[in-house]
Amino acid sequence: VIVFASDFGAGSEWVGVCHAVMATIAPQSRILDLTHTLPRFDVSGAGMILREALPYTPVSAAALVVDPGVGTERRAIVLRAARGDVLVGPDNGLLPLAAERIGGTAAAAVIDTARFQLPSTSTTFHARDVFCPVAARISSGTPFEELGTPIDVATLVRARPMLLEVGPGRIVCEATHVDGFGNVRLSARPESFAEAGLDGEEAVWVLTPSGELSAHRAPTFAALDSNRVGLILDSFGWFALCINRGSAADRLGVQRGSRIELRSRA
Amino acid sequence: VIVFASDFGAGSEWVGVCHAVMATIAPQSRILDLTHTLPRFDVSGAGMILREALPYTPVSAAALVVDPGVGTERRAIVLRAARGDVLVGPDNGLLPLAAERIGGTAAAAVIDTARFQLPSTSTTFHARDVFCPVAARISSGTPFEELGTPIDVATLVRARPMLLEVGPGRIVCEATHVDGFGNVRLSARPESFAEAGLDGEEAVWVLTPSGELSAHRAPTFAALDSNRVGLILDSFGWFALCINRGSAADRLGVQRGSRIELRSRA
Amino acid sequence: VIVFASDFGAGSEWVGVCHAVMATIAPQSRILDLTHTLPRFDVSGAGMILREALPYTPVSAAALVVDPGVGTERRAIVLRAARGDVLVGPDNGLLPLAAERIGGTAAAAVIDTARFQLPSTSTTFHARDVFCPVAARISSGTPFEELGTPIDVATLVRARPMLLEVGPGRIVCEATHVDGFGNVRLSARPESFAEAGLDGEEAVWVLTPSGELSAHRAPTFAALDSNRVGLILDSFGWFALCINRGSAADRLGVQRGSRIELRSRA
Repeated sequence: VIVFASDFGAGSEWVGVCHAVMATIAPQSRILDLTHTLPRFDVSGAGMILREALPYTPVSAAALVVDPGVGTERRAIVLRAARGDVLVGPDNGLLPLAAERIGGTAAAAVIDTARFQLPSTSTTFHARDVFCPVAARISSGTPFEELGTPIDVATLVRARPMLLEVGPGRIVCEATHVDGFGNVRLSARPESFAEAGLDGEEAVWVLTPSGELSAHRAPTFAALDSNRVGLILDSFGWFALCINRGSAADRLGVQRGSRIELRSRA
Repeated sequence: VIVFASDFGAGSEWVGVCHAVMATIAPQSRILDLTHTLPRFDVSGAGMILREALPYTPVSAAALVVDPGVGTERRAIVLRAARGDVLVGPDNGLLPLAAERIGGTAAAAVIDTARFQLPSTSTTFHARDVFCPVAARISSGTPFEELGTPIDVATLVRARPMLLEVGPGRIVCEATHVDGFGNVRLSARPESFAEAGLDGEEAVWVLTPSGELSAHRAPTFAALDSNRVGLILDSFGWFALCINRGSAADRLGVQRGSRIELRSRA
Repeated sequence: VIVFASDFGAGSEWVGVCHAVMATIAPQSRILDLTHTLPRFDVSGAGMILREALPYTPVSAAALVVDPGVGTERRAIVLRAARGDVLVGPDNGLLPLAAERIGGTAAAAVIDTARFQLPSTSTTFHARDVFCPVAARISSGTPFEELGTPIDVATLVRARPMLLEVGPGRIVCEATHVDGFGNVRLSARPESFAEAGLDGEEAVWVLTPSGELSAHRAPTFAALDSNRVGLILDSFGWFALCINRGSAADRLGVQRGSRIELRSRA
């Protein structure tokens, strides 16, 4: 299995060309498209989505591509996760974040591009020319040790940490993801609620850059008050602002990266 | 083969995570994505698309997911179609409608979720936690009888029937589907035209919520009058309002569910 | 491998139904979706994208579908490329253009639809009823000679040639493609720059239907001046107007087919 994820957009010919390259190098491989609608140019936002998704994949080679610095001096790297996966992509913070829930980063190396890239390499499409060819070689059996030069894991670029400040009756966090339905995932998990003493409260105040409102907690979308924003613990363990059969992001006027404050109503 | 369809949106990481779960449980399976742009939260609209599409698939296990009631008391079911397929999804009307053209519903059971779901089950993502794992088990050979407790087919929730009233020179129907090109599929087939006595007419009056016009019948898109809405018998046997190289839905201001009346011009 | 590309849209059930048809006829095949967001009804624009993408695929059967004339007298054809691929689609110019970089057209035939289509054929969905079934038969071993009646390659419909006029210090070209990021690919390659004597210039004037500006050349997106339109040689060897982390198409107000003039600033 080769896992493939990018910010190229659904149905893009860029995705198709990468499939073509991998099918040529590794005809027996199975390509698993995790998503191609990662938030564009946003390494932190994309990495957090990948971090939640990778625990569900089989152990695999994975080409993970959000690469605004393509063609510059940024390194092309492979990273071995403790679970056994090998992640391939740019050294911009994406891979260590993506690896967090599959055991974290066990080893890393700079790709020996002279050996493993396509014969002709562009300055703008390294998914096609470097990352996917290397992922295909890994799935065909090339061992991690032969992919390039080992580097100290401490030298890897790290993604911006997400905003999370917890005090008594108060959580300052951010919108880390707006999914296709308009649900707004926050950088807060149950342990932050417990720490802030918000655990027992049925509803919290939500302060966004464009206003504030009271949001009731609910176990399911259908249990939300009709046409009102509520707070759900989502299927990956994060709190999310949601509307039943509607877009909370549109209603609230928030987007990925928006600062969100949750406060006790007591 | 595992057929997979949902309203998650093209390129969504939700689709990718479900693929990952199925590839883990059933590594030898082939996943056939029928569509992931089913109309959101609309069980009838989605079911009618699936009903037309399933006759083209091989006999298969199919995870079919439009599930606004996820996490509530609604049942998780498997349904055996007379053709031999096993459909997996929520008991909200989607599955019996989807099964109509592959022989209809032969048997049904409530899934024994304690046995077949993922170890940890969310309240908001049963495609990942229940339906796709069960579809993967079916494709790996688990027999229908072992999936859960048989239920009377008569107890299954049914989707809203589509609007269709036929009188002399008159058909009252609805827009059941707007495809990506903006073609508007109606809930009328040739037999309704025959019944209404509209069969021989070259054009009919079309009354929509936002206006009326005369629509000529044509055998192909290219045969439509330039830049005018016409009536085509579409590739699944339904009449559709279409514009050559344009969006009839935009032109007419109609959407899925809009009431459409067709009348004789005589 | 069966390569499949269309203008049906990402996630469309039309794509899924074609997959279903191919999986039924050729269960052992691997379907490679090259793209389903080809520019709608635009044979030239779509063909130029396919031409750049096909060199990366393995030698294969390919169903290529942009077919505004579906159901009319336009022929359904197969075309053998010199590399060995067999392309299947409508005779509207798409296939010869798509074959240009995989050796060009070596032979062509009109499909014997009576033998190779689905039992029931619509007038509006030949991807499902003719092209994909034929591609599946090819991938299952049916030789080219048995697919239909040979025709003179000179009789094939040809796509509109793209605009390209080169004079001293001046290139008149067109926008041939706007990708998902908003990068605007031009119908100009390095040889046109050399011919026009623009090769050594760091920046050129760009005249579009809605204005003009100076665009610096840069080797990578990240090397572009912040928030300004620049000129990059893209990963397929074409010049493209780009903005780092933004949409040049939106900024310039240009779309596919827009006339673009490049002039020396000297």
